Amino acid sequence: MSHQKMKAGIVGATGYTGVELLRLLSAHPHVDVCAVTSRGEAGIAVADYFPSLRGVYDLVFQTPDDADLASCDVVFFATPNGVAMKEAPELLAKGVRVVDLSADYRIKDIPTWEKWYGMTHASPETVVEAVYGLSEMNRAEVAKARLVANPGCYPTCVSLALLPLLKVGRLKENMPLIADCKSGVSGAGRKANVGTLLCEAGDNFKAYGVGGHRHLPEIKQTISGLQNGVADGLVFVPHLTPMIRGMQATMYVHLKEGTNPHEILSGFYRDSAFVDIMPSGSTPETRSVRGANLCRISVQQAPQSDVWIVLSVIDNLVKGAAGQAVQNMNIMFGFDENAGLGNTPLLP
Amino acid sequence: MSHQKMKAGIVGATGYTGVELLRLLSAHPHVDVCAVTSRGEAGIAVADYFPSLRGVYDLVFQTPDDADLASCDVVFFATPNGVAMKEAPELLAKGVRVVDLSADYRIKDIPTWEKWYGMTHASPETVVEAVYGLSEMNRAEVAKARLVANPGCYPTCVSLALLPLLKVGRLKENMPLIADCKSGVSGAGRKANVGTLLCEAGDNFKAYGVGGHRHLPEIKQTISGLQNGVADGLVFVPHLTPMIRGMQATMYVHLKEGTNPHEILSGFYRDSAFVDIMPSGSTPETRSVRGANLCRISVQQAPQSDVWIVLSVIDNLVKGAAGQAVQNMNIMFGFDENAGLGNTPLLP
Amino acid sequence: MSHQKMKAGIVGATGYTGVELLRLLSAHPHVDVCAVTSRGEAGIAVADYFPSLRGVYDLVFQTPDDADLASCDVVFFATPNGVAMKEAPELLAKGVRVVDLSADYRIKDIPTWEKWYGMTHASPETVVEAVYGLSEMNRAEVAKARLVANPGCYPTCVSLALLPLLKVGRLKENMPLIADCKSGVSGAGRKANVGTLLCEAGDNFKAYGVGGHRHLPEIKQTISGLQNGVADGLVFVPHLTPMIRGMQATMYVHLKEGTNPHEILSGFYRDSAFVDIMPSGSTPETRSVRGANLCRISVQQAPQSDVWIVLSVIDNLVKGAAGQAVQNMNIMFGFDENAGLGNTPLLP
Amino acid sequence: MSHQKMKAGIVGATGYTGVELLRLLSAHPHVDVCAVTSRGEAGIAVADYFPSLRGVYDLVFQTPDDADLASCDVVFFATPNGVAMKEAPELLAKGVRVVDLSADYRIKDIPTWEKWYGMTHASPETVVEAVYGLSEMNRAEVAKARLVANPGCYPTCVSLALLPLLKVGRLKENMPLIADCKSGVSGAGRKANVGTLLCEAGDNFKAYGVGGHRHLPEIKQTISGLQNGVADGLVFVPHLTPMIRGMQATMYVHLKEGTNPHEILSGFYRDSAFVDIMPSGSTPETRSVRGANLCRISVQQAPQSDVWIVLSVIDNLVKGAAGQAVQNMNIMFGFDENAGLGNTPLLP
Repeated sequence: MSHQKMKAGIVGATGYTGVELLRLLSAHPHVDVCAVTSRGEAGIAVADYFPSLRGVYDLVFQTPDDADLASCDVVFFATPNGVAMKEAPELLAKGVRVVDLSADYRIKDIPTWEKWYGMTHASPETVVEAVYGLSEMNRAEVAKARLVANPGCYPTCVSLALLPLLKVGRLKENMPLIADCKSGVSGAGRKANVGTLLCEAGDNFKAYGVGGHRHLPEIKQTISGLQNGVADGLVFVPHLTPMIRGMQATMYVHLKEGTNPHEILSGFYRDSAFVDIMPSGSTPETRSVRGANLCRISVQQAPQSDVWIVLSVIDNLVKGAAGQAVQNMNIMFGFDENAGLGNTPLLP
Repeated sequence: MSHQKMKAGIVGATGYTGVELLRLLSAHPHVDVCAVTSRGEAGIAVADYFPSLRGVYDLVFQTPDDADLASCDVVFFATPNGVAMKEAPELLAKGVRVVDLSADYRIKDIPTWEKWYGMTHASPETVVEAVYGLSEMNRAEVAKARLVANPGCYPTCVSLALLPLLKVGRLKENMPLIADCKSGVSGAGRKANVGTLLCEAGDNFKAYGVGGHRHLPEIKQTISGLQNGVADGLVFVPHLTPMIRGMQATMYVHLKEGTNPHEILSGFYRDSAFVDIMPSGSTPETRSVRGANLCRISVQQAPQSDVWIVLSVIDNLVKGAAGQAVQNMNIMFGFDENAGLGNTPLLP
Repeated sequence: MSHQKMKAGIVGATGYTGVELLRLLSAHPHVDVCAVTSRGEAGIAVADYFPSLRGVYDLVFQTPDDADLASCDVVFFATPNGVAMKEAPELLAKGVRVVDLSADYRIKDIPTWEKWYGMTHASPETVVEAVYGLSEMNRAEVAKARLVANPGCYPTCVSLALLPLLKVGRLKENMPLIADCKSGVSGAGRKANVGTLLCEAGDNFKAYGVGGHRHLPEIKQTISGLQNGVADGLVFVPHLTPMIRGMQATMYVHLKEGTNPHEILSGFYRDSAFVDIMPSGSTPETRSVRGANLCRISVQQAPQSDVWIVLSVIDNLVKGAAGQAVQNMNIMFGFDENAGLGNTPLLP
Repeated sequence: MSHQKMKAGIVGATGYTGVELLRLLSAHPHVDVCAVTSRGEAGIAVADYFPSLRGVYDLVFQTPDDADLASCDVVFFATPNGVAMKEAPELLAKGVRVVDLSADYRIKDIPTWEKWYGMTHASPETVVEAVYGLSEMNRAEVAKARLVANPGCYPTCVSLALLPLLKVGRLKENMPLIADCKSGVSGAGRKANVGTLLCEAGDNFKAYGVGGHRHLPEIKQTISGLQNGVADGLVFVPHLTPMIRGMQATMYVHLKEGTNPHEILSGFYRDSAFVDIMPSGSTPETRSVRGANLCRISVQQAPQSDVWIVLSVIDNLVKGAAGQAVQNMNIMFGFDENAGLGNTPLLP
């Protein structure tokens, strides 16, 4: 490592994934954030906009046109869907590597993407080269990638738990595979919206997107290549929970006879710093990963049943977004995968 | 109705179900609360202990020995498990009718009860006559009952949704039946306990009791007689949600070909004031029943799947406890089932 | 009372004061809600928009033009500021009585109103006749009013506590009078706004409007006529608290020698059902009035100080808005002041 | 700095200040935690007790007798009041330096301490040498101290804001000095207690300790030596706010003519990394310091008044407890004052 730090830019840094990237990168030993863009807040100091960053950053939001993103080594897109697909290709052409936290490059099948995201894809040819950045699944590809499609929060939480079992073909084919998921409200982003007001989402619990959610095809794409005949059975119901950060997936799976899922998961993640397989019988809680790039998973058999219950928790803004983005950046640039991501969860 | 109001007593009125009974009965046209007991708070005015009841009640907590419970027409037990089984029989013998909000009389099989509740049952002979007070299921029996075992919150939320489908035998036998349930923290009661502190349960989500929960045998007992071969497949996972009141069950069920669950549910509850079958495609939210004796249910098929998703919400302290207890009392005494229970939910 | 119920309309019923009016009026023995208007939601059933009202109302939102407001006996404006001042005069001219929950008619001095609300007043001549509906202060005037300006939440919470002391001239003149106020987030209304998202306002506490808040001139107007030389010393700092409902004012006052504030307050409110003067040494909490049209007040001397501490709590949506509006309606129409407002607070 | 890390012990590490010390020290470059004690949890692994620390610490809770505290360089007491006064002297005698996060050594006047804490002080002779660890006030003394009495959260939040003004004598003597303070619930600690249950403290706001609070004499002691005639006027009212972390003091002060408080505060804290004087007109919010060892302060004049409003926020568990304890340790041992404390606040 040289004394020269790498230069990073963040496009669309006024949302929750943006401010979380700023928090995480402030602790990164090898990266300087050099440019942050926002059309709406151009000219405003980052530290005025986010007082939590007073004394941390001297940056001022710039328009994407004014910001010198081309001179960055890496640019993160923390933008609404539909922006990165227009702006990333030009940066890639200039040799900038890109981590896209939006959904633009996650789905390989363009018609599927266009159906769920309700727009025409602006750079389908670039989708081909994008590497799906579920770090623990695709480390080798991420290391070589110019463009990483950072996974959605639900797909991360669900796929990390299922991946090891699918890789060795231990789920029963043609059986339902249920992922009952619960998310804190920050997953909905930092936009003015009645549904996520404190007085609407507070002291309340509800399912949403029961009839179809964008993360369903993303999860199916992720797991469908791993074991035939399993992804089709996926049922995914997201719920909104009155908390800020945190996500839990409660999965009900059918395992083939003789499977020891704890052993398989522990083995698979033996060398992964960010996935913690908990002892049998324990139950993870979301606050145990608050603010940290961690996924904690436990697995146990349902009483008097042959269904297995897999519990997986992440902080949706960290391992489910900005933390995994930094992890992917670390892998892309050959840094220690853990660099800048070693902070202890905040509890209580 | 005569001008003379009926007399009600509450044993153990310092907990959440107790104070909720006091709130609901304060609006009841035919009932006067005449005695409230608490060993710990005897001598304290109810309105000093619960300032929300200032100006509403003039009562003072009494010890169970001092309180003239025998002169009541009905006595509610809002006590920890293990109290009613000792004290209710004597009241019954004196002609007092009893609604027990604890678990003492819910489980018919004594060894099962003793296993889950960790004590020897003090009045197994009385268990026989207790009517399980899931009002919409057992109206006729409740009407004749001397002793009603008021159901647990989870069993109410789950069973009300499944009952109509089971009654007509529409679930596939020998298939898993999954009830992923989420409860507000008041379900844990008003006792000093680290786990339910605001700083432990707030901004946090977790499963609990995954390896076995007392409400599992209660639900199994309730549904097992309705359709053979279904109850055995039940998987029940409760979760703790950072809110005060409210409970949701998300159920994943396998229906026989050609079943129209919305029609079955709507038909079954056509004349039930307290169960609301919502339009297909809608999703109930817990706050839509906050403070009210309501269960709202919706049902829809999972996308690209033959699994059906049944969503059921209640206020765990009302339809899940004190409200259903008042409803049962109304049925027992021939009052309008709705008496005292007509309040509109509090939103936001 | 005749068997014929009075007809009420609500203009702008999609906000929190609107839905709270709907909740309260659903329990009112003498009133039928006949028209609810919303430009944005016209054509939508109230019970679809607010599922908490399923089974309670059959109404459909109408545009103000379509709704037959002129045939109502009373119309409530639950609109943003600037609407009632345009639409109320026409209704008044048709003989409809009006309770305006917005700020349009609260401030008598038009330039002051225009400065704080940033618009030209559309009906200054009507302001003259509007009665400021702090019910306990102005009962006699409210009873004769055609138009009631329903007070703001902060002015209600502060003024009810100070009023009795000011009426008998017991505050020291020319001394500071500090009202440190804390509000739940519903006070900010049900509009899409980043600042009141759960993820912004949750788990957070802050002052706002420190440099000037619209309720400051309203409070000053209310108390300035009661005792000379006191209102000028008023310092008012509002704070946002991470809860849905509830408001507390902590007031620091200088009393003249020999004043017994508890006695004065108790005497003043002896016959007021909705103001509860608590025993000396007790501290009210906001949840003790949740959902109810109550103000609870306590007063005590600060230790080792001659400053007195007056604590006042209300539910900002009830006594601070919709409840007081119904109370004013009751007074205007000669109903029992308590009609429809007798519900017990929801705790927990 | 040598390669050998310093050894730290924590007595009573199962509470919120204990787990927060563990979090902060896990990021400290010069310290290893070698011993953690808990009578109740002896034998339990720290990472089992606090799953947020899985993978961070290998320690096991020990009884105070079993733990080799004497071999530590520094021992933190994160115990209930009354423990450190008994156990610290022996450690001091063995050459161990001590930071006491409890109240045992904060109050110099023994009768005052005994009155407020309700016990006889076990080591009054040691109180004399204890340095009150308000770091920014007493850096020089802390640097030489063997025993630091870490300040309470309220005294820290209030005193940091007043200190610079008092040091230069700018408050008016013999005038009231009001500190209206609001705390998150974690300030009450991690003990089983009905009052701090989520269902009691959630969605609720209240004052407490109005008739007298232990932190009143502590604040008075801290500020009384700075400017005569000011401390006596202090009125301190704490309130409980439904959030986990965070504390705000809203202070109403009378300044002498011609005082520029913003300038005085900015000057005083020019070289203090942990106190941030915000621009005039801004208002700090508690989440802007969540998880960080920061105090943010703003000051402005009340509109139409000569009262000044000083707003001060801290995270009660960091700058109000564990963070300041680490800061004091850094000063005591000659480390960079910032060591281990540089993390960016967690927002949202």
